[in-house]
Amino acid sequence: MHNKIAITFIKEYFINLQNSIILELENFTETKFLRDKWERPKGGGGITSIFENGKIIEKAGVNFSHIFGDNLPTSALANRVEFKNLPFNALGTSIVIHPFNPFVPIIHMNVRFFSLGRNSEKWWFGGGIDLTPSYIYVEDAHYFHNTCKDKLNKFGEAYYPKFKKECDDYFYLKHRSEPRGIGGIFFDNFHEKSFEYSFDFIKAVGEIFLPAYVPILKKRKDNKFSETNKLFQLYRRSRYVEFNLIYDRGTLFGLESNGRTESILMSMPPVARWIYNWSPEKNSQEEKTLNLLRDQSWV
Amino acid sequence: MHNKIAITFIKEYFINLQNSIILELENFTETKFLRDKWERPKGGGGITSIFENGKIIEKAGVNFSHIFGDNLPTSALANRVEFKNLPFNALGTSIVIHPFNPFVPIIHMNVRFFSLGRNSEKWWFGGGIDLTPSYIYVEDAHYFHNTCKDKLNKFGEAYYPKFKKECDDYFYLKHRSEPRGIGGIFFDNFHEKSFEYSFDFIKAVGEIFLPAYVPILKKRKDNKFSETNKLFQLYRRSRYVEFNLIYDRGTLFGLESNGRTESILMSMPPVARWIYNWSPEKNSQEEKTLNLLRDQSWV
Repeated sequence: MHNKIAITFIKEYFINLQNSIILELENFTETKFLRDKWERPKGGGGITSIFENGKIIEKAGVNFSHIFGDNLPTSALANRVEFKNLPFNALGTSIVIHPFNPFVPIIHMNVRFFSLGRNSEKWWFGGGIDLTPSYIYVEDAHYFHNTCKDKLNKFGEAYYPKFKKECDDYFYLKHRSEPRGIGGIFFDNFHEKSFEYSFDFIKAVGEIFLPAYVPILKKRKDNKFSETNKLFQLYRRSRYVEFNLIYDRGTLFGLESNGRTESILMSMPPVARWIYNWSPEKNSQEEKTLNLLRDQSWV
Repeated sequence: MHNKIAITFIKEYFINLQNSIILELENFTETKFLRDKWERPKGGGGITSIFENGKIIEKAGVNFSHIFGDNLPTSALANRVEFKNLPFNALGTSIVIHPFNPFVPIIHMNVRFFSLGRNSEKWWFGGGIDLTPSYIYVEDAHYFHNTCKDKLNKFGEAYYPKFKKECDDYFYLKHRSEPRGIGGIFFDNFHEKSFEYSFDFIKAVGEIFLPAYVPILKKRKDNKFSETNKLFQLYRRSRYVEFNLIYDRGTLFGLESNGRTESILMSMPPVARWIYNWSPEKNSQEEKTLNLLRDQSWV
């Protein structure tokens, strides 16, 4: 791979993706994102875009970052000593949206590129998109998963089932024996056929976000809700916090490698609530949705 | 040490400590704690006591647990293979109180005993008590630290400065370059002179809680506060969540060793709030208190 040219292309694509998503969200919600450009003292930086306190979106972060250096941070090595003292590049665009209405799901999307060596001799893509509803609408879950599946099927029918399973395995709260949400797709170490093929694949993943999420957001954003519904949303968000701070590799890698804390933790919900040993009332909407959460087949 | 006798004594003391603190809190707040007894399938169990949604105390957990088994959980070994395949006992009483009034600090206290081997050939105590105010009153901070110091000085003047420093080092959020609160004392691997001496020391630590905290709670619980004050408290609580889920060894050990999640996470605040890149207004109460937070000398 021609390192500098390839990274320039990827960077341009990731920033365009960030901008096109911000633009669409701004148009639709009639709001303006705050943009913070930042630099990493040891190399690289990013553009953090945040929106808070809206009527439709309670908090959203749409971030781009590109960090690089002469040595991979120790925390990223995971005992793979063969990667020690190698120059690295890590680029990515990440989105998390915490909607205001409890019937609209949280969305998370990430596409990333990682390379090692002076000329990026070793490289891979990673990414994914997944949905975390407080209340599950089966039809929305099907719609979301089918949108992912249709997009990946253009590259072969093996991808969706494989990356759906990786997503279910990854977004799992072991300490609660509970999935974070209804999943989607997740993959890492993606390096197939050629650089062009792999890059096209990641572009396709980046294109899932708008068609997979915005129709759900539009459909559910004006749903009437009670105080109970809102409190249940805040309660469910506590699980999102637990997952991201205890398990999420991206979050922990970012914090350990002296990333920009406020950009990394844009994923935190605006408000979350913990209640001791809470369980839903029999036959309530909340009980039904928690039972559905364990059903991991949505196509 | 005579294993069974010693563990019986410690267990009795830890449960008495739990009960005496619950009783005092119940009398004072005119409320009743919920008590849940639970068993650990692999050995042991505990008594979780919780109180939520009070006018003075928004959420409190006062827990006792005693877990044991034939093999130390792998996560507790930390590469110390010499401890592999040894029977273990872990006992402790833990308290976390999240007060309602933003001018009352969060308190955390823990006393614990750990032993390894059929006859507890290897054993140690650990513990600590520390304060996390949203708004710092210098006089309260002095009072709290002096109460800790006076108690420990009865065993020698070297303990307080040593364990105060360990507390400052331990309750530190690296990713924010910020201490969790104003500290207190913290220690581990305490095994000095004799079992009796060490046990007397841990009893003294257990006796710090009521005199060190209740006077502050009484003094500040009726302070008038604004919505800004309450929101600042919820914002500061997010740091408490971050510390406990990212760094706290007790929390992570508990979750990894299949402890009872709802008992371990009783430490989570009832409600917490994340705001992107928030900073206080110039010369505000919030700015003053955040500046004070970095002052680590309170005696």
